[in-house]
Amino acid sequence: MIFKLFPKEYNFFDLFEKQAAFALEAARQFRMVVGRGMVDEATLEKIIAIEHDADDVAHDIIHQLNKTFITPFDREDIHALAKELDDVVDMITTITNRMMVYKLTGINKNLVEFARLIEESAQSVQSAVKGLRNMKDVSVALEEINRLENLGDTLRDNSLAELFDNEKDPIAVIKWKEIYQDTETVLDICEDVAHVVGSILVKQA
Amino acid sequence: MIFKLFPKEYNFFDLFEKQAAFALEAARQFRMVVGRGMVDEATLEKIIAIEHDADDVAHDIIHQLNKTFITPFDREDIHALAKELDDVVDMITTITNRMMVYKLTGINKNLVEFARLIEESAQSVQSAVKGLRNMKDVSVALEEINRLENLGDTLRDNSLAELFDNEKDPIAVIKWKEIYQDTETVLDICEDVAHVVGSILVKQA
Amino acid sequence: MIFKLFPKEYNFFDLFEKQAAFALEAARQFRMVVGRGMVDEATLEKIIAIEHDADDVAHDIIHQLNKTFITPFDREDIHALAKELDDVVDMITTITNRMMVYKLTGINKNLVEFARLIEESAQSVQSAVKGLRNMKDVSVALEEINRLENLGDTLRDNSLAELFDNEKDPIAVIKWKEIYQDTETVLDICEDVAHVVGSILVKQA
Repeated sequence: MIFKLFPKEYNFFDLFEKQAAFALEAARQFRMVVGRGMVDEATLEKIIAIEHDADDVAHDIIHQLNKTFITPFDREDIHALAKELDDVVDMITTITNRMMVYKLTGINKNLVEFARLIEESAQSVQSAVKGLRNMKDVSVALEEINRLENLGDTLRDNSLAELFDNEKDPIAVIKWKEIYQDTETVLDICEDVAHVVGSILVKQA
Repeated sequence: MIFKLFPKEYNFFDLFEKQAAFALEAARQFRMVVGRGMVDEATLEKIIAIEHDADDVAHDIIHQLNKTFITPFDREDIHALAKELDDVVDMITTITNRMMVYKLTGINKNLVEFARLIEESAQSVQSAVKGLRNMKDVSVALEEINRLENLGDTLRDNSLAELFDNEKDPIAVIKWKEIYQDTETVLDICEDVAHVVGSILVKQA
Repeated sequence: MIFKLFPKEYNFFDLFEKQAAFALEAARQFRMVVGRGMVDEATLEKIIAIEHDADDVAHDIIHQLNKTFITPFDREDIHALAKELDDVVDMITTITNRMMVYKLTGINKNLVEFARLIEESAQSVQSAVKGLRNMKDVSVALEEINRLENLGDTLRDNSLAELFDNEKDPIAVIKWKEIYQDTETVLDICEDVAHVVGSILVKQA
C-alpha cells in the first residue's frame, strides 16, 4: 500500500480530500442558490469562505511539496491536482458572484440542470480523490466525470441555442451566455481533475 | 539519427504525425464549411469524429509517456506537444459547433480568410512535426507559423473593427465577435505548437 | 549569496529584471493612455515595441534555460516566471489595441482606477523580482501584489454592476465588459508572478 510506503507523506492524501470536500460543498451551495432562483448575500459569503479555506489547503500542498523530497506521486501531478481542485471552487465562486453582480433572478431550468451535473461531478471527483489512497474504484469515478462533462457540453449547446432563439434583450443574452459557458467550464475542470488522477493511476499500475 | 538512437520510442514520432494529420484534416473540413457559408450536420459530425480520433492518439501518447523511461525528447515537451496538437483540433471543433448553435449562415469573407490561414498554418505544423525525426527544415516551418499568426492578429483586429462599425444588431455582434476571436485562437495554438517544437530543436542542437 | 554561488547564471536575474522593467513601462504607458481618454497611434506603437522587446528577453531566458545545466532556481520556476512576466506585457498590449479597435474614447473613471492599480502592481512585481537576487524584502512586495489583486476584483465587480445598471447601448456593454474583465486579468497575472516568486522563496528558505 502506498500509504505504508510513504508514511510521512500521508497528509498529501488528507489535503487532497479536504480540497475535494470543499469543491463538493461549494457545488452544493451553488445548487441551492440556483434552486432558489437568486443569489443571497449570505450564501455568496459562505461560498467565498469555502474558497478561502480551499485556497489555504492548496497553499499547504504547494508549500509541503516544495519542502518534501519524496512524494507519493510525481511532483508535477501533485501540483496539477492541487491546482485543478482549487480551480473547481474558484470557478463556482466566480459564477455565483457574477450572478449577483448581474442581478440575475428567477429559476432558470437550464442552470438548475447545470447545478445538478456539477454536484454529481463533484461527488465523483471526491470518490476519485479518495481512491488515490489505495487505487480502488477510481476508474468508475473517472468515467462518470467524463460522462457528466459530455452531458454538460450538450446542455450548454442547447441552452445557448435556446437563449439566442428566444431572448430578444441583448443585455440578457450577454449575461446568460457568460453564465452558461462558465458553468460548463466547471465540468471541464472536473474532467481536468480526472485526467490528472488518471495519469497518476497509470504510473502506479 | 534520433530514430536509431531510440528505436523503441519510434512511435512517439508516428503518434505526433498522426495528431498533425488530424489537425490538418480538421482545418480542411473547416475551410470547406466556411466556403459553403453554412455548417451542415454531416461535416460537423465528420469534424467531431476527427476530434475523437485525435483524442485517442493524445491519450496514447500520454499513456506511453507514463510507461516509458527513456524518451526521444524531454518528457515535458512530449506532454506539451501532445496537448497543443490536440488543442488545435478541439478549437476547430468548438468553433464549427458554435456556428451551428448560433445558426450562422452566409459566406463571411473574413472567416474565409481565417480558414485559409488556419489550413496553411496546419500544413506548416505538419511540416514542423515531421521535421522532428531528423531536425531538418523545421525552422522554415516555425517561421511560417509565426508569420501566419501575425496575419491572424491583423485579420482579427480588422474583422472586429468592421463588425463594430457596420453591424447594428447586437445579437449578431455577440455571435461574430466570439467566432472571430476563437478562430484567431486556433492560430495562437499553432504558434504554441511552434514554441514547443522550437524548444525541442534548441535542446537537440 | 546566490549570486556568488552561480556566477555564470547571473544573467537570469538580469533578464528577469529586464522583463519586470518592460512590464512597468507598459503599465505606465497604459496609464497615460487611459488618463488621456483615448488611444493614440503613437502610444499604441510604443507599447507594441515594448512587447516585442519583452518577447526577445523571454526568448533569451528560455533559450538560455535550454542550454544551461545548473540554474539558480528550479527550471520549471524559471520557465513559469519568464512566461508570467511576458504575459503581463502581452495583456496590456491586447487591451490597448482592443480599445483602439473598439474606438473607445473619453475618460472612464473605473479604467483610470484600474490603470493605477496595474501600475502599482507592476512596481511591486519589479521589487519582488529584484528581491530574488538576495531574497530580501520579497514578502512585502508579494503581499502588496495580492492586496492590489483583491482591490481589482472589487473594482471589476463594481464596474460591471455600474455598466449593466446604466449603459443602455448593448454594443457599448459588449466593449466595456471585455475591457474591464481584461484589465482585471492583468492584476491576476501579476498575482501569478507573485505565486512563482513565492514558490522560489519557499524552496530557498
